[in-house]
Formats: sequence, C-alpha cells, structure tokens
Amino acid sequence: MRIIDKAQLVEILDRDLAVRLIEEGFIAFSAGKVHVPPVQNFAFTEQNGDCCVKSAWLQGSDTFTMKVSTGFYDNPSKGLESNDGLMLVFSASTGQPLALLQDQGWLTCLRTALAGRVVARLLAPRKVRAIGVLGSGVQARMQLEQLLPVTDCRRLIAWGRDAGRLADYRRFAEGLGFEVRTTHEARELAESANLIVCTTPSREPLLQREWIQPGTHITAVGADGPGKQELDPALVAAADCIVVDAVGQCSRYGEVSHALEAGLIAPGDLIEIGALLAGQASGRTQDDAITLADLTGVAVQDAQIARCALMSLAASRQGPARTVRPK
Amino acid sequence: MRIIDKAQLVEILDRDLAVRLIEEGFIAFSAGKVHVPPVQNFAFTEQNGDCCVKSAWLQGSDTFTMKVSTGFYDNPSKGLESNDGLMLVFSASTGQPLALLQDQGWLTCLRTALAGRVVARLLAPRKVRAIGVLGSGVQARMQLEQLLPVTDCRRLIAWGRDAGRLADYRRFAEGLGFEVRTTHEARELAESANLIVCTTPSREPLLQREWIQPGTHITAVGADGPGKQELDPALVAAADCIVVDAVGQCSRYGEVSHALEAGLIAPGDLIEIGALLAGQASGRTQDDAITLADLTGVAVQDAQIARCALMSLAASRQGPARTVRPK
Repeated sequence: MRIIDKAQLVEILDRDLAVRLIEEGFIAFSAGKVHVPPVQNFAFTEQNGDCCVKSAWLQGSDTFTMKVSTGFYDNPSKGLESNDGLMLVFSASTGQPLALLQDQGWLTCLRTALAGRVVARLLAPRKVRAIGVLGSGVQARMQLEQLLPVTDCRRLIAWGRDAGRLADYRRFAEGLGFEVRTTHEARELAESANLIVCTTPSREPLLQREWIQPGTHITAVGADGPGKQELDPALVAAADCIVVDAVGQCSRYGEVSHALEAGLIAPGDLIEIGALLAGQASGRTQDDAITLADLTGVAVQDAQIARCALMSLAASRQGPARTVRPK
Repeated sequence: MRIIDKAQLVEILDRDLAVRLIEEGFIAFSAGKVHVPPVQNFAFTEQNGDCCVKSAWLQGSDTFTMKVSTGFYDNPSKGLESNDGLMLVFSASTGQPLALLQDQGWLTCLRTALAGRVVARLLAPRKVRAIGVLGSGVQARMQLEQLLPVTDCRRLIAWGRDAGRLADYRRFAEGLGFEVRTTHEARELAESANLIVCTTPSREPLLQREWIQPGTHITAVGADGPGKQELDPALVAAADCIVVDAVGQCSRYGEVSHALEAGLIAPGDLIEIGALLAGQASGRTQDDAITLADLTGVAVQDAQIARCALMSLAASRQGPARTVRPK
C-alpha cells in the first residue's frame, strides 16, 4: 500500500488530466453509472467538530475510493488547521488497499475548484469584463487559479469581511497576474463582475437578485451542507440556466434548495453538469443570459481525483515525456 | 499518523483489555451511547467481490474509528486472501488521523471471537461436556482460542465438509491442548457438545432443533449478511434465552431474522448483550436451558478493538510492567 503525502500530491498531480477525469466522473454520475453509498456523518457537538465519509465507485473503474473529511472549528486555537482529511484507494478487482492519500483535505479543495473550472468553461460569458470572487480562503484562491485557463480576463474584484485576509488575497491574486480591486460591499462586486464565484460558508444571502447584470455567470460552492446559503432565492429563480452537480443533493441543501422550498423554481429547472457535458441539455444560449452553477460536491469527484493522483504518480515515475490519458 | 501492520498488532494487542473494551462497547451501544452512521456497502458483481465501511464513535471516547472490509472471492485463484481490510482511527477532539491499522481483517476476526468469549462467559452451561465447533477457518480457530479462558473443558468435536481442512483444524486444536474428534455429521456434534460455536458462511440450516441437548449454549457468528443461515428457525424458537449483539441488525439478517419472519419468535424475545452485561436482563437461569447468541458484528466492536490497539501500543512502549485500563 502506497502512502502519498500532500506535498507529493501538490507536486505530481496532473491538473489537466484531473479536469478530464472529473468531467468523465460527472457524465458517469448523471448516467447512473456511479455507485455512491450513503454518506456517513458524525457530529461532535462538544468538540465543535464534524466528520463525513464519502465513498464512490465509477462502474468499470479499476479502483474505488473512500474519503474522510473532518472539520474541527476550535482547532486554530490549538495551532491546528480546522480541516483535515485523507483518501483511501482500493483495487476494484481484488479489494486490496492500494494507496493512502494523506492530502489533509487538499484534494477535496482541488476537485471543488476543478468543478468550478468545468462549469465556467461551459457557462461563462464570451466576454468576461471582470471576475468577482466572494471569500478569501483556500477555495477562493483555488477557484481563481482554475479560472486562468478558462478566460483571458485578468481583472478581479474581491469581496471579504476581514480586511487583513482580503489584503492577503489581493497579494495572492496579484501574484497570478490580476489587476485587483477589493471591497466590503458585495453589491459593488456584483455590479462590476460578470463571472462570479461564491466561496463562503455564509448562512444568509450575500448576493441579491437586483444587483446582478445581464450575461453574468455565478458559480456557488459554499452551500455544502444544511443551513448554508450565499444567494438570494430570487436570484436563483432569475437564472436562465441552473446547473447543479447532483439534483438530489442540491435539492436537499444546495443553493437551489431554498428556491425550491419557496416554490420559485421546479425540480425540472435543474440541469446536471453531467447531462450538460454529455450534450443532453443546453447551457448558455444567449449573451445576456444569467447562468448559475450550484456545486455541493459529489463523491465521484473524490474517486476521480484520487484515480488522477495514482495515474499522475505512475506517469511521473516513467519520466516527464509521457502523457497520461484516462482509461 | 501512525501506521501499524498486522504482525505488530498480533504481537502487542492486549486481549484481556480488548475483552473489557468490547464489553464496555456493547453496554454503551445498548444504552444508545454509540454513534453509528449507516454502513456503506459496495457489490462488485463481475469481480465477485464486496466491500463494507463501518464507522463508530462511542460518546465520550477520545477517538473514532472507520473500518473497511473487503471480500473478493476469486482472490485465492490469484494467490491472494479473499478478505482484506484496515481501520483508521481519528482524534475525536481535533479530527486528525491518528493511526492506520493495516490489520488485513485480523482485528475484525478477533473482535468477533472476543464477542464469542463474552457470550460464552455469560451463557455457557456450568459443566461443559464437550465444545463443538462448526467450520474450520480462521474464525473457527479464533473462537476456540477465546474459549480457553472461559471453560476448563478440553474436549472438542469439530465439524467440517472438507477432510483436509478438518485435519488441519484438528492439528491446530490439538496444539491448544484439546482432545479432538472430527465429523462430517453435524448431528453427531450436536448430540455430544453442549457449548457449540457455528462459524460457517452457510446459507442453509446446519443444526436442527431435535438434535440439541438440554443445557446447551450455541453461539452463531456466520450470519453476517442477508441470506446466510446456520440454524433451524425452530431451534432459534426453542431457545430459552436469545441474545443478540444488535436487535436491529440481527432482525434484518441474523439467525433470528428467519425465526422472526416465520413468526416463531417476537422482537421482545431478543436480549442485547449490552443489556445482559448491564444487568438489565437475565441470561441462563437453569442448567437445562438452551441459550443462543446471534452475533452479526457491530461497528462499536471495531471502534473498541482499534482503541485497544492504540492503548496496547502505548503500554508496550512504556515497558511490560504497566497495566492498561480502559479510560
């Protein structure tokens, strides 16, 4: 059993291969070809922590994956990161454990950012005036990095509550080549940017319907559990195209859940990324359409990013000249 | 994160501590103090394999555990064991992964055998004439080892279908100090032994009601999934005392499920080990009573044996003079 740590994963992981595998995963998921047992959840109330276990097997794949994510929110006071995690990869032909990926949650962050890249490529307006990012954490950084290959736009407006963190984020984005404006007013961001990514753990809407300009695409990744919400349900309802990673999960606790509950949209309004990628639905059909992608995170992304790690590792051992293609 | 392999576990694991922790686990489970999310199951039909993920946290414990078990039944033709598995232990106060126990399924076998020891101590007749074991695999061996501290009886009658494996089992049991008789007739075993352990993956009853002598205790561990069955439902119904590890799980697919379905017993006839250990129910009340223990295996046993492994390891590092007590 191979044990791979975070530093090694960051070094070897082939991001382009990862995008292709994540897309393959979404398509298989929407086609009903991914086995996903129920998520296991623990709540450690006194310790202000939680843990979830997500497992998946993409039919026909020679491996299956189990991912453990933990969040213990008093950890920073102990000098530890709040989030931790790992993945286990097993052979789907012998059951043997093949690899322990001690990624400390990095692969989860990356697969989420890669899903953002996939939907931005599918739905972003042809001419991006400015990118808007809400939040200044790891996900805000990784989403921005993943937009680099999707658009030439290097104008960024970044929203955050904490001035210090926002200043750090500015430096990070400038390092990527962006011309950066920061703001504490989400309205200012919404009125300037037409490719917006929401990455906060907010429990109340940050973006209102009336602020959003025609032609804008919004990707929301913050609502990954019950009670979280970044968008005004009226904004969700105003979108001309609503894409979700998983209809079932998003209907339970994604951004769209609030609009569904309020009766502003119907389940039939939701399009899965996999269906869009497979050409079974259309995304942006007009330049002035508002499009929305609601990403709650599905286990097939974990399975595919883990496969990618093992394939990247094998390729890196065979020397840099080899290209890796999904099987 | 500590990585501990099977050989090290076999060497350091304190079996007596394990019994106490398993008992503590059963009591907590029956008192509703164990958090057990739904089991994750995979079926790999073409590969003739399966996998299950069981996780548990005993409220108040400083660790929680996740166990992966795989069974790929064509593995022997590839020179591999059919069963494999591992456990992960996490801190319940910070979420950090503490240990990977690469036990290859050994800890699961042991915790099952230890449950057999617990119920034999609680329910075996005062005078054991002969022990009867059905099956000749790993579990048949471990159950026999775990009966050594429970009874002075060193007469064994062993049943199996394969003569070669049965001969191996005889040698194993003789090595433990038993006087051994082997048979291919389960009836012969049932008529001689009054402490019987069934350890087979049978899908049809092996022991019939009319063969069993008054005063016998039977522990059945084979029915760990749908479709498996070692006992005649009439025998289950004839037991004066029916003990189960988990009422819910045993009612779904344990030995008792067949008798429940047939209406031969009622859910109220089932006593959980935890309730028995806590003194909330009585077990064997008469010398001539027939008692039955139906063990399907619960995740709290995994959590407790994993805790035991870490505690044993800590104790072994502090030198042999230290005794380990459960916290």
